Amino acid sequence: MSGSHPPGEIPPLALSLGDPAGIGPELIAEAWFQRRSLGLAPFVVVGGANIVTSAARSRGLEVPIVAVETMAAVDAALFDRGLPVLSSRDGVYAPGKPDAGGAQLALHSLTEACRAVREGEASALVTLPVAKSQLALAGFGHPGQTEFLAQQCGVSERDAVMMLAGPSLRAVPLTVHCPLAEVPQRLTVDLIIHKAQIVARALREDFGIEHPRLALAGLNPHAGEDGRMGSEEARIIAPAVAALREQGIEATGPHPGDALFTRRARATYDVALAMYHDQALIPLKALDFDEGVNVTLGLPIVRTSPDHGTAFAIAGEGIADPGATFAALRMATECATRRTRREP
Amino acid sequence: MSGSHPPGEIPPLALSLGDPAGIGPELIAEAWFQRRSLGLAPFVVVGGANIVTSAARSRGLEVPIVAVETMAAVDAALFDRGLPVLSSRDGVYAPGKPDAGGAQLALHSLTEACRAVREGEASALVTLPVAKSQLALAGFGHPGQTEFLAQQCGVSERDAVMMLAGPSLRAVPLTVHCPLAEVPQRLTVDLIIHKAQIVARALREDFGIEHPRLALAGLNPHAGEDGRMGSEEARIIAPAVAALREQGIEATGPHPGDALFTRRARATYDVALAMYHDQALIPLKALDFDEGVNVTLGLPIVRTSPDHGTAFAIAGEGIADPGATFAALRMATECATRRTRREP
Repeated sequence: MSGSHPPGEIPPLALSLGDPAGIGPELIAEAWFQRRSLGLAPFVVVGGANIVTSAARSRGLEVPIVAVETMAAVDAALFDRGLPVLSSRDGVYAPGKPDAGGAQLALHSLTEACRAVREGEASALVTLPVAKSQLALAGFGHPGQTEFLAQQCGVSERDAVMMLAGPSLRAVPLTVHCPLAEVPQRLTVDLIIHKAQIVARALREDFGIEHPRLALAGLNPHAGEDGRMGSEEARIIAPAVAALREQGIEATGPHPGDALFTRRARATYDVALAMYHDQALIPLKALDFDEGVNVTLGLPIVRTSPDHGTAFAIAGEGIADPGATFAALRMATECATRRTRREP
Repeated sequence: MSGSHPPGEIPPLALSLGDPAGIGPELIAEAWFQRRSLGLAPFVVVGGANIVTSAARSRGLEVPIVAVETMAAVDAALFDRGLPVLSSRDGVYAPGKPDAGGAQLALHSLTEACRAVREGEASALVTLPVAKSQLALAGFGHPGQTEFLAQQCGVSERDAVMMLAGPSLRAVPLTVHCPLAEVPQRLTVDLIIHKAQIVARALREDFGIEHPRLALAGLNPHAGEDGRMGSEEARIIAPAVAALREQGIEATGPHPGDALFTRRARATYDVALAMYHDQALIPLKALDFDEGVNVTLGLPIVRTSPDHGTAFAIAGEGIADPGATFAALRMATECATRRTRREP
């Protein structure tokens, strides 16, 4: 970690800009503007000074920019005076009109922000939303930011686990971006155990939950109803739960998917492990859409993100809800603080 | 319809007891006890007088029973004096301890309550929860009450459509009790169109929504993301939506499953059509568990049910939440009133 910060204070968060035509820049501006009332820790944006200034104005905000040469230059006093921006890379603010130049800028910002965290200049990475279709035109070959960041950190995709977290729920989809028809064959005992171990460790170390309680969903209706509607529960999920419990991890299930997310059920676990994308994302977004955070577990860095897209349709209208970005900033600070305390 | 009721008043609702060892009997008692403050329409329970009396006491309630020979004998004044019970069939109240005798009583109550509604003696059927495993021991060969009631009404299972309804959401699973792995091949353009037509008609006729807005979910993550994660959206769901629109039904989609149930999205439709069981049941139970109603569309009778199970584990403890039963009673009355008005 950088030595320029007093004890108890962590280096700033590094923010990637996201697609400049999306709602990312205006959310960054709003977060800086509300920094005092929200008690936000200092953060630095990589690139896009003009874009953030213009995006701020679309929300009726004046946000002074402080160009910085290094993350280490940023302390609480500097952050209070203006929004720190690292790197002179910039572009044109054209809300709702993404283009290749914007995608290039978003990729530069993401890469550089990740590097700064990997090298200890920043304490955590908070990524704003990108447009995958635009990034693909710019030569980006990854399904999403998470897979790219895993590679940048030298971590196998298998070891980078997406968790969604809101005030009502934490949920992890054990399979993510694959057709629903492929989910049954992708689920294996090993996959479940491997990802559950990463989740349990991250909840202990980054979230401060000493004995995390993991609740695993079934795959089929009513968790298969004793094998009458599918065999994956008995063949795959139950053996994984048993193995995890033998390792001392508090895992339960398989629970019927629809019973797992009721208010009363949610009070009985710290994280739900879902078998496929929508099984985790549907309850999270139904309950906590405006405050949902996407956090990547299993990386050597702390990484969070607001759990929404670029929202090109409303970019620049000043109406994008900043709640998820605020939550992502706070969660990044909390996790980074825990990691810093653990280090010698 | 029975001619013994004054204009504007509908015949009573017929309630089936549900498994006598479950929470059904105590919920019936609670509903009768709160009939005045809730403004509930008169209802009649088929069988189980002693069971309901005992179940009432488990909640600290004294519920007088009025044995009746016919549904037609029940009017508002009689209902106010005591809980009307039709049929002398009864059993022993043993909360949490289901047995074959209880399952037989539950089946008798269900059959007779359904008959009374079919024959116009009662205006609607409200079923309390049964235990399928117990019913199976009693020779019941149907996957659930809905399929049994379809048969009793002379309706094909294909024409009986389950809808879940709560204060936040109405949702219909287009496939229900089958393994998740079979969902992709069960979905066809015809199936979606057929069930959507039944849903649209029921929302118009039973729920009074003149131009119901149907929002169809995708099957795959992000609704397949333009074919990158599955082809069912393009091959099956989009053509069904197009065909429904040609028929003048306000259908939209396929929408990404996780985007469909956010608070803002829910404000844009009257019912969500989900591709599989958990896609509909997860958001419903996450949002509205204590007030969720299961209503069967496409039957010649009105039928509702609280959307929960027998809850043997808490039966007799006096803590079962009656909200879903109250909601099921109200919805049955509303739908039956609309049907009565439409009849000559």
